[in-house]
Amino acid sequence: MSVKDFVQQRRDDFISLRRDFHMYPEPAWLEYRSAAKVAEKLIALGYDVALGAEVLDLDSRMGLPSEDVMKAAMARAMDEGADPELVEKMGYGKTAIVATMKFSDDGPVVAFRADMDSNDVIESKASNHIPAKIGFRSRHDKAMHACGHDTHMTMGLGLAEYIATHKDGLKGTIKLIFQPAEEGVRGAKAMVEAGVVDDVDLMFGMHIGFNEKLSNCFACSDHGFLATTKLDAVFHGYSAHAGGSPEKAQNAMLAGCTAVLNLQAIACHSQGASRMNVGVFESGTGRNVTPDVAVLKLETRGATTEINDYMIERTKTIIKGAAEMHDCTFEITKQGETPAGRISDDLAREVQEIIEPLGIFKEVPFDYSGGGSEDCAYFLNRVIDRGGRATYMVLGSAIKAPHHNPLFDIDEEDMLNGIVALGTIATHYLK
Amino acid sequence: MSVKDFVQQRRDDFISLRRDFHMYPEPAWLEYRSAAKVAEKLIALGYDVALGAEVLDLDSRMGLPSEDVMKAAMARAMDEGADPELVEKMGYGKTAIVATMKFSDDGPVVAFRADMDSNDVIESKASNHIPAKIGFRSRHDKAMHACGHDTHMTMGLGLAEYIATHKDGLKGTIKLIFQPAEEGVRGAKAMVEAGVVDDVDLMFGMHIGFNEKLSNCFACSDHGFLATTKLDAVFHGYSAHAGGSPEKAQNAMLAGCTAVLNLQAIACHSQGASRMNVGVFESGTGRNVTPDVAVLKLETRGATTEINDYMIERTKTIIKGAAEMHDCTFEITKQGETPAGRISDDLAREVQEIIEPLGIFKEVPFDYSGGGSEDCAYFLNRVIDRGGRATYMVLGSAIKAPHHNPLFDIDEEDMLNGIVALGTIATHYLK
Amino acid sequence: MSVKDFVQQRRDDFISLRRDFHMYPEPAWLEYRSAAKVAEKLIALGYDVALGAEVLDLDSRMGLPSEDVMKAAMARAMDEGADPELVEKMGYGKTAIVATMKFSDDGPVVAFRADMDSNDVIESKASNHIPAKIGFRSRHDKAMHACGHDTHMTMGLGLAEYIATHKDGLKGTIKLIFQPAEEGVRGAKAMVEAGVVDDVDLMFGMHIGFNEKLSNCFACSDHGFLATTKLDAVFHGYSAHAGGSPEKAQNAMLAGCTAVLNLQAIACHSQGASRMNVGVFESGTGRNVTPDVAVLKLETRGATTEINDYMIERTKTIIKGAAEMHDCTFEITKQGETPAGRISDDLAREVQEIIEPLGIFKEVPFDYSGGGSEDCAYFLNRVIDRGGRATYMVLGSAIKAPHHNPLFDIDEEDMLNGIVALGTIATHYLK
Amino acid sequence: MSVKDFVQQRRDDFISLRRDFHMYPEPAWLEYRSAAKVAEKLIALGYDVALGAEVLDLDSRMGLPSEDVMKAAMARAMDEGADPELVEKMGYGKTAIVATMKFSDDGPVVAFRADMDSNDVIESKASNHIPAKIGFRSRHDKAMHACGHDTHMTMGLGLAEYIATHKDGLKGTIKLIFQPAEEGVRGAKAMVEAGVVDDVDLMFGMHIGFNEKLSNCFACSDHGFLATTKLDAVFHGYSAHAGGSPEKAQNAMLAGCTAVLNLQAIACHSQGASRMNVGVFESGTGRNVTPDVAVLKLETRGATTEINDYMIERTKTIIKGAAEMHDCTFEITKQGETPAGRISDDLAREVQEIIEPLGIFKEVPFDYSGGGSEDCAYFLNRVIDRGGRATYMVLGSAIKAPHHNPLFDIDEEDMLNGIVALGTIATHYLK
Repeated sequence: MSVKDFVQQRRDDFISLRRDFHMYPEPAWLEYRSAAKVAEKLIALGYDVALGAEVLDLDSRMGLPSEDVMKAAMARAMDEGADPELVEKMGYGKTAIVATMKFSDDGPVVAFRADMDSNDVIESKASNHIPAKIGFRSRHDKAMHACGHDTHMTMGLGLAEYIATHKDGLKGTIKLIFQPAEEGVRGAKAMVEAGVVDDVDLMFGMHIGFNEKLSNCFACSDHGFLATTKLDAVFHGYSAHAGGSPEKAQNAMLAGCTAVLNLQAIACHSQGASRMNVGVFESGTGRNVTPDVAVLKLETRGATTEINDYMIERTKTIIKGAAEMHDCTFEITKQGETPAGRISDDLAREVQEIIEPLGIFKEVPFDYSGGGSEDCAYFLNRVIDRGGRATYMVLGSAIKAPHHNPLFDIDEEDMLNGIVALGTIATHYLK
Repeated sequence: MSVKDFVQQRRDDFISLRRDFHMYPEPAWLEYRSAAKVAEKLIALGYDVALGAEVLDLDSRMGLPSEDVMKAAMARAMDEGADPELVEKMGYGKTAIVATMKFSDDGPVVAFRADMDSNDVIESKASNHIPAKIGFRSRHDKAMHACGHDTHMTMGLGLAEYIATHKDGLKGTIKLIFQPAEEGVRGAKAMVEAGVVDDVDLMFGMHIGFNEKLSNCFACSDHGFLATTKLDAVFHGYSAHAGGSPEKAQNAMLAGCTAVLNLQAIACHSQGASRMNVGVFESGTGRNVTPDVAVLKLETRGATTEINDYMIERTKTIIKGAAEMHDCTFEITKQGETPAGRISDDLAREVQEIIEPLGIFKEVPFDYSGGGSEDCAYFLNRVIDRGGRATYMVLGSAIKAPHHNPLFDIDEEDMLNGIVALGTIATHYLK
Repeated sequence: MSVKDFVQQRRDDFISLRRDFHMYPEPAWLEYRSAAKVAEKLIALGYDVALGAEVLDLDSRMGLPSEDVMKAAMARAMDEGADPELVEKMGYGKTAIVATMKFSDDGPVVAFRADMDSNDVIESKASNHIPAKIGFRSRHDKAMHACGHDTHMTMGLGLAEYIATHKDGLKGTIKLIFQPAEEGVRGAKAMVEAGVVDDVDLMFGMHIGFNEKLSNCFACSDHGFLATTKLDAVFHGYSAHAGGSPEKAQNAMLAGCTAVLNLQAIACHSQGASRMNVGVFESGTGRNVTPDVAVLKLETRGATTEINDYMIERTKTIIKGAAEMHDCTFEITKQGETPAGRISDDLAREVQEIIEPLGIFKEVPFDYSGGGSEDCAYFLNRVIDRGGRATYMVLGSAIKAPHHNPLFDIDEEDMLNGIVALGTIATHYLK
Repeated sequence: MSVKDFVQQRRDDFISLRRDFHMYPEPAWLEYRSAAKVAEKLIALGYDVALGAEVLDLDSRMGLPSEDVMKAAMARAMDEGADPELVEKMGYGKTAIVATMKFSDDGPVVAFRADMDSNDVIESKASNHIPAKIGFRSRHDKAMHACGHDTHMTMGLGLAEYIATHKDGLKGTIKLIFQPAEEGVRGAKAMVEAGVVDDVDLMFGMHIGFNEKLSNCFACSDHGFLATTKLDAVFHGYSAHAGGSPEKAQNAMLAGCTAVLNLQAIACHSQGASRMNVGVFESGTGRNVTPDVAVLKLETRGATTEINDYMIERTKTIIKGAAEMHDCTFEITKQGETPAGRISDDLAREVQEIIEPLGIFKEVPFDYSGGGSEDCAYFLNRVIDRGGRATYMVLGSAIKAPHHNPLFDIDEEDMLNGIVALGTIATHYLK
């Protein structure tokens, strides 16, 4: 059966699957229910499924939550139907999966990567927000699939099912990578360091969404990846009674606010795009106590590693100066990091030739540079470094609000088209 | 028995009682366990005890927590030994107690007021912090008696016990007021509006602590009360992907940080002391999402109501401007308020003459102006307005760190002396 | 003739004299024309007039302008009618005068001090501003007598004339001190260090103005003097093309703006009034060049020297941190300083008894605490330190706008009353 | 004679000429001496020279200085040897020149544009700064040729001389445009609106400098022009005595500093480069007066007009909010503006083919995108709009410090090569 027909036949199931994932969003390193569901299905389809410490270099993980938080997430996942044995096997901070199916000794190793984690966003209850309207809004407090990873898992499983059920005549090996902790670019490095793509010849990453103009388009590469680093900064001051002895304070909130304004004011770099975002700021314990602590969660980005390094250096200088201004101490810790990703232009051109004839996309541009960061870069760069080829594709969708916004939503038809595209690419290279 | 001898005899019990209160600190409007313990003891001593809605004008309460929070606090209090019937009776936001004992129809009504709530401070675990060292550190997360209200309750009960056990020859009526929610100046107004001091002839408030110089001193008045207002400000912006579409953001954190810096920079007032404290600032949901919300909890203070009004007006202007700068909307809500308090100087002079001969204090100054705010002002002002007399006394103690600091601690000997002072004053006026 | 009658007779001349001074305002250390006019008149009245280096300890002067600026001011003064010989004698930075008249060897040395310099304010041209309306608005660019020193000189000369013309029966010595550079508290220290009040028994300072409520009142002391320090801070960064290489900048303007906001946000002190004013901020050379320099002119104040020291220490810390945040270097230089001043309360009480019977003032309060700073403090403190007595008096006047405002103006009737008061005081003590 | 030989022969004169221009830098609209010298030489060479109102649409000029400033500049220019008749003819704000030489009725009209104004930068006196070392450092206070316009004039005159002295066999018309006020992008629009390039077929702009890597390179186009807008913002507050009545202030400096920090923190745009530079900030009149005025001179830039518009809109919102925060009024005025420039790629390719064979440049890249803004864009866009072709070339030079820096300097050999390049291009198209 053609991929198109297959997807048409299974469309309701794929939509249900996506909505199920959407209802149970799990933040980075806590994807127990999602990963268990994914693994279960892959096993049922006949894949060799490796997970947990088998596919992670534990020391390369970044930005892990506390064990308490992980424990609670494991319990909740099991409450919500995750297979306890799989959850147990993943254990603390090991929610990674690699599924393999070998067709022949000759032929290429072709890998696809999907990510599984959700965002720290409270999903909108607005009546025009489809998940709220139809009833598959997030069941989890302060968590939402606001970046489309629910569809990524669904597309990965759709691809897995198509290949498993149409494997006659295929050569080589397919490798399906389900990565934890893409948000915060914390998870890919540990999988790459564990060697999971060291044997890969062709590597494909993909992301849904981006913006309205790209609706129903399929871009064969993204040259616009930004290198990024995720940092936490904590200021420690001294708290005093705000009315009775204000002069004794070492005001960590003033240090923090001064840092935020100056961080956001770091000069642009002439050699390419740069970004600063202080995404979270928490300071103070009580209204009438001068604040003795301030916590900043921030990220830098740069079109190149050099530009990102410039941002980091300025960040450190600013935080140090802000602390000193208010007689505070401080510490800075790294929570995640990824380089800019490389693309094999020839592979992207081939993809363009493979996808265009499908006739399901309005346009199939060679490139779309979205300006985001993605630790898929680790996979791409490792494969290219070892002589393979790699690209990262963009599946445009008419999103209702920017990524990470409480109103974010994609068009499910685009997700279905995505499965067709992935199935077609896989079949092409495995034939 | 003299008050001094009585306190000497009961010293271990009073110290134990204070440490028990210290271990179970309860923030404003959540003093279920504390209040239940206080009420239980007062009833046992033979007082007429009114509590809950009997002694509170419910509409005059300010800054109530949510019902969920209150419910959880009630459950915890019962877990920790509070009498379920009393907790039930207090119900949502009604943790106020007035205990009365009448000796004769003639003679004055003499009232004493103690407050019961704790601070939002995480108590230090440092080995030189006595509560940590000896083992009566706070059992409650993020709550601490860092302002000595544990000793206030103990002193109120010590006074209650002395009077109840030495009532022969007393005239008039004693009224013991145990107030909730002094922190944030949220509770006194509702008790005063309920009329609890409308029949009072002599009103006494008191606070322990202040600073090292005042150690073992007893000041007979505090003319330095500051008027204060507690405000919450919330900024609402729009969140976008920090890498992919930063220009779409309406950055509430920048609005908040700009507000904080400018609020703390409000010009001093030439006519007397003013204070601004933004005590809590929380903004943002995730590192790679531009922050769409910022919450500020702040307080203004002024030596006079006019100065406090100046601070409030400037505060509102600054918050509005900061919101507009970043295309954010905002709202400001009042969480608490108290005027500056008045003092009957002649009563304070009398107290000086009563206390000095006791010989237990290093010094007995007429006045100590601490620069704090106290909603005891409502009690003082109401009594004076209705023709009575009132003062607010300061029981100096060599505190280890400023009030509201994680290392705050008082000297328990000073607390014992405080009971002697209160017992002596009560006996003097009830004879 | 009584002082009242004398002033009545000479009123038009005194008003003309004040308006002449008003038209030619001269900033600190540049009072060449003013001082020459003053000296000329004093000499004509028969006083022994010492000026320049005779009455200044040159090393104790603070905040001198550059020689170029002084040279230009000298030339202008001569153009505007100053005696060239006197201007020459004063030379660079020596515009100080002490006039003495001795009546007998016995009797006290009674000293009066007036200041001569103007403010860096552009005088209003508004039609309701009397100097503009009548035509004696400042002829000098960016300079204005917006603090009443024009009337101080006039009152000093009025007193000088009355005493010189009514010296029969006087004992002791009168000493009239005309001080340069009161603005910025830069001049008094050098006169005091030169010993000009070392022989003084009774020292009187006085200021006109303050606020409407004080109109036509005479306060016999000012206990509200604030200690103050005047600092210049300069940030040095690195300038780059704002479009082509912004990342190379070390942005001194950002350092400066960050410093200003944080300086103005220094916490109030619980022990008394404090003040911070960054009065001048200049940064940058061109619109498309990133700013490599920022200059701040600021002042700290405190009710006590300790509070002022707290402000200075915080100031230095903030400037250092702000510089470091932006990889800038910085220097801080002191431009002026004065302690808080002391008052001989008994002398102030005597003055009250001397002035009240005159019947020319609405009220004669013992004290008015204006909240300003005055280097007259050096004179007061030195005289008191050496066993004499001193006070600083406030001559209330219904000012039209705050001191240092472009619309500042006093009521000339109050100035005339001021001469009566000074003449009466002098005569009282010299009799 | 070949251009190369011609330049070799005249090299000392061209170097002298450049150093003369360098010594007398004149800011925008004040280029009286420079323009008079240029016009004088062009007239002597036989060109038809139009200047002043003939070549300027007066209403399209932007950012003119005051008449006083222009008058002083005219006087100075005449003092420094400018022809009084020419200076007079240029008059107020009309320092523009167009020189034309027609060879035949057929053949193209080929135009070259040079700019003449200097920067508001104080030139370095450092011993390693060649102009200081050799002795041709700026004679003018606060003005410096820190962007190479001295060499642009020299190259324009070198080209003029070569063509005038080698006109045999030339066809068509050469047009040499000497533009005032490029800094601040204020002058080109008025020349274009006067129609000076309406008949032009081929338009060439050029700039020297940029960065070390580009040393001795010649780039045939610059596609990286940024659209830009120059704005002045003024905040008006209310000044009060900083010690005596600080609460009466409406602090314009706080409004300004808050604006600066927030302006520099405007979020980057995802669709391309953006820039903000507040280049000048001046606030306050005196140290002890609260500042009642703040002036900001700033510029926005964007890779596209849309991005620049985004920057302008955010700028206006921030300034308004900052003013409101401090009860200040404000006004914003436009001082200059230019769109992004267009390039005729085919013309740039032709130039590459013309220049490469000269063998005098290390490299001759098709494009160098410097990230600056240039109102030469008006010339380029007008010519292309009317059917002609245009390019803007970059003459790389190993600059010693970034453009607009006090240490900026170019290599004079590069300037000489520039004349060779221009002469070669002109000859090519006029043959």
